[in-house]
Amino acid sequence: MIPQWLIEQKRDGFALSEEDLRSFIKGFASGTIPDYQMAALAMAIYFKGMTDTEVMVLTDAMMRSGDLISFDGWNRPTADKHSTGGIGDKLSLMIAPLAASVGLAVPMISGRGLGITGGTLDKLESIPGYNTRLTTEAFKQVIETVGCSIIGQTERLAPADKKLYALRDVTGTVPSIPLITASIMSKKGAEGAETLIFDIKCGRAAFMRSIEQARLLAESLSRVGRALNRKTAALITDMDQPLGRSIGNAVEVTEAVETLKGKGPADTRELTLELTALMTVVTGLHSSVEIARGELAQRLDDGQALDVFRKMVIAQGGDPRFIDDPTALPQPGHRQWVTAPSSGYVADVDALAIGRVVLQLGGGRTKTDDTIDYAAGIEALVQQGDYVEKGEPLMCLLAKSPSQTEALLPLASSSITLSPEKPPARKLILETLD
Amino acid sequence: MIPQWLIEQKRDGFALSEEDLRSFIKGFASGTIPDYQMAALAMAIYFKGMTDTEVMVLTDAMMRSGDLISFDGWNRPTADKHSTGGIGDKLSLMIAPLAASVGLAVPMISGRGLGITGGTLDKLESIPGYNTRLTTEAFKQVIETVGCSIIGQTERLAPADKKLYALRDVTGTVPSIPLITASIMSKKGAEGAETLIFDIKCGRAAFMRSIEQARLLAESLSRVGRALNRKTAALITDMDQPLGRSIGNAVEVTEAVETLKGKGPADTRELTLELTALMTVVTGLHSSVEIARGELAQRLDDGQALDVFRKMVIAQGGDPRFIDDPTALPQPGHRQWVTAPSSGYVADVDALAIGRVVLQLGGGRTKTDDTIDYAAGIEALVQQGDYVEKGEPLMCLLAKSPSQTEALLPLASSSITLSPEKPPARKLILETLD
Repeated sequence: MIPQWLIEQKRDGFALSEEDLRSFIKGFASGTIPDYQMAALAMAIYFKGMTDTEVMVLTDAMMRSGDLISFDGWNRPTADKHSTGGIGDKLSLMIAPLAASVGLAVPMISGRGLGITGGTLDKLESIPGYNTRLTTEAFKQVIETVGCSIIGQTERLAPADKKLYALRDVTGTVPSIPLITASIMSKKGAEGAETLIFDIKCGRAAFMRSIEQARLLAESLSRVGRALNRKTAALITDMDQPLGRSIGNAVEVTEAVETLKGKGPADTRELTLELTALMTVVTGLHSSVEIARGELAQRLDDGQALDVFRKMVIAQGGDPRFIDDPTALPQPGHRQWVTAPSSGYVADVDALAIGRVVLQLGGGRTKTDDTIDYAAGIEALVQQGDYVEKGEPLMCLLAKSPSQTEALLPLASSSITLSPEKPPARKLILETLD
Repeated sequence: MIPQWLIEQKRDGFALSEEDLRSFIKGFASGTIPDYQMAALAMAIYFKGMTDTEVMVLTDAMMRSGDLISFDGWNRPTADKHSTGGIGDKLSLMIAPLAASVGLAVPMISGRGLGITGGTLDKLESIPGYNTRLTTEAFKQVIETVGCSIIGQTERLAPADKKLYALRDVTGTVPSIPLITASIMSKKGAEGAETLIFDIKCGRAAFMRSIEQARLLAESLSRVGRALNRKTAALITDMDQPLGRSIGNAVEVTEAVETLKGKGPADTRELTLELTALMTVVTGLHSSVEIARGELAQRLDDGQALDVFRKMVIAQGGDPRFIDDPTALPQPGHRQWVTAPSSGYVADVDALAIGRVVLQLGGGRTKTDDTIDYAAGIEALVQQGDYVEKGEPLMCLLAKSPSQTEALLPLASSSITLSPEKPPARKLILETLD
């Protein structure tokens, strides 16, 4: 295999042979194929796509570049949920313990945030002591004891994907459905869960801007899932507007705890229940989504899901005081209310603008090695359909200092559109694919 | 300038601003922008192209990454010829001294061969002692004394281009008209000649396979040439069949000497005269191509061009004995005749196959750090229209050993098509653009 010939083949629109593709990925993982050749290939894939077989081979090659976790012989069904990422998406924090509370085993390997998109791992790391870097053995032990565990991608899990993802991030080759599919599925394949539920975010603050793109990704993920012998289902959900009323890291953990206490914003609770219900139905634990939703709602309301969450935090070294006292999490140096310039209904909350505000407050990173201010973010954010009087709060900015919030007031204000008429209800779930 | 944003901009089909493009190229040249980002950008340019302004900016940025040679104040017009490369293309070896013999100053910076395409520099380096690495000062002095000098791209001449070319070569991003244009023109711009004549090779063994592609490149080169205040003209010439009857390195030097002695194959002589005539007319030295051709033919026949060539070789440290005795050049260990399986006219000589034979005999390189066997190649190659009797020679393979030639006999044989009918005359010059 001559690397540049393979690049030229893809550039000219031909499919790569299994043997060539595997040896290219193997070479890239081991360092014999330099980053610049992988970058050129990734850009050629961006333009020319991949056949289903190529996506499968790429997924499998990256999956097998590291350890494969196995739950063979466990007496509980294993399941995981994967989201393509959005603003205020703290759903993993509720779904993992909720699913575990009804008897699923949930191995969940999450990522960090980049750009406007938050990451579950960063949110968890705002909890004092919480360890996201468990060994495979410790990970399995927490799942066995507690029912779920959320950790980060280890060095030994799909290392070729880790290397490729970092490269794509700086070479303009992230938004490619074959590459996104292979990246997600190589990690999920190595993670070992039998059932995989996908939450494909769609809208102006998501990777997938259009429903057509979202559908293509959902279908691509399902095809590879089936080829890997996994049971899959997907929801396409709205990401034109943020999820919940808190955006950031510590502040989203607090909202997650609220939701696990049976409270929290309606949209956050609804999607938590929908996605977890899909999970329990696909695994065969519940016979219908209606039955599942009923039982799951009860587990949120009676505190059993919260109990699993608390046990997971403790098992992973975290100090659980924040569950009863949110001020045990990192607190901002400065709070700044943004108020309504006029009275009216909230017609629109621009998730993209909100994401940018949080990023600039220090709640996200523009480069992978940026450090995050866990306390930074937004809370008490209005939602579409809310009514506000002139001068009433639209949101509260959480920052280090007044100088930080001052510069961001115009962007924060302009992210909210007010209108004299009540807008139609938000459609949270755009499509279900199972 | 955030490098990945610039890559994304090009990927999405937008033009890059002058400021961004310049700072990207500056960063690449200095090493602050890594190869993998340049590779991704090059692939995006391959797919999305560049505007005329972008090509100009890229050319200028690469040109100014190193020294600029100037011939300001010289009393002779300066001119150079550039070929896009082909099989048997030894024309620079004749054109430089021939143009100098009628009063032009010819600064010629040539390249090495790669793949099936030979390089003028490799041919010259088969001459014992010939130094292709002169300083700028020595280069100018040889031109002043002798009238011409042929050297290699120094570290100080368009270093950004040198780095980019090496990267493109291994990332499948060579055949891009904007990138080819900027690569050629950044070197030619830095080289300082006022007149530039382009020989755009077109056919199965050329970068440009179709006349349309060749025309696009010729036009692109002319546009940038004009923007750099150079006088330009171009010929599109056939590269379906090899040029001349000798292919390799030492063996092409010998054919060049023959041509400079007023002999040599008709096609080699014709193109030498045409390209040099175009050069002298565009510089204003001759008033018409007919007049130019007449005087130039005389300089080949009376030995004055050869005299300039001899002086150049001596000025650059070469041992000139090979001019009178070809065996003073590296000689092959083994000669193998390939004979005609039947009688007939030579209907076709496949330049691509011939190029591959020479490459596999050791006369070229597949990687930039491969070493070349200067003696390897082909001589006494038949040409389209020749008549051969069964058993008469089609070509002679020059190799290290019989085992080498044995494996290549089938490919060498199949490169020649014989036919009972005389084929139409070869059209050597496909188009003239001035």
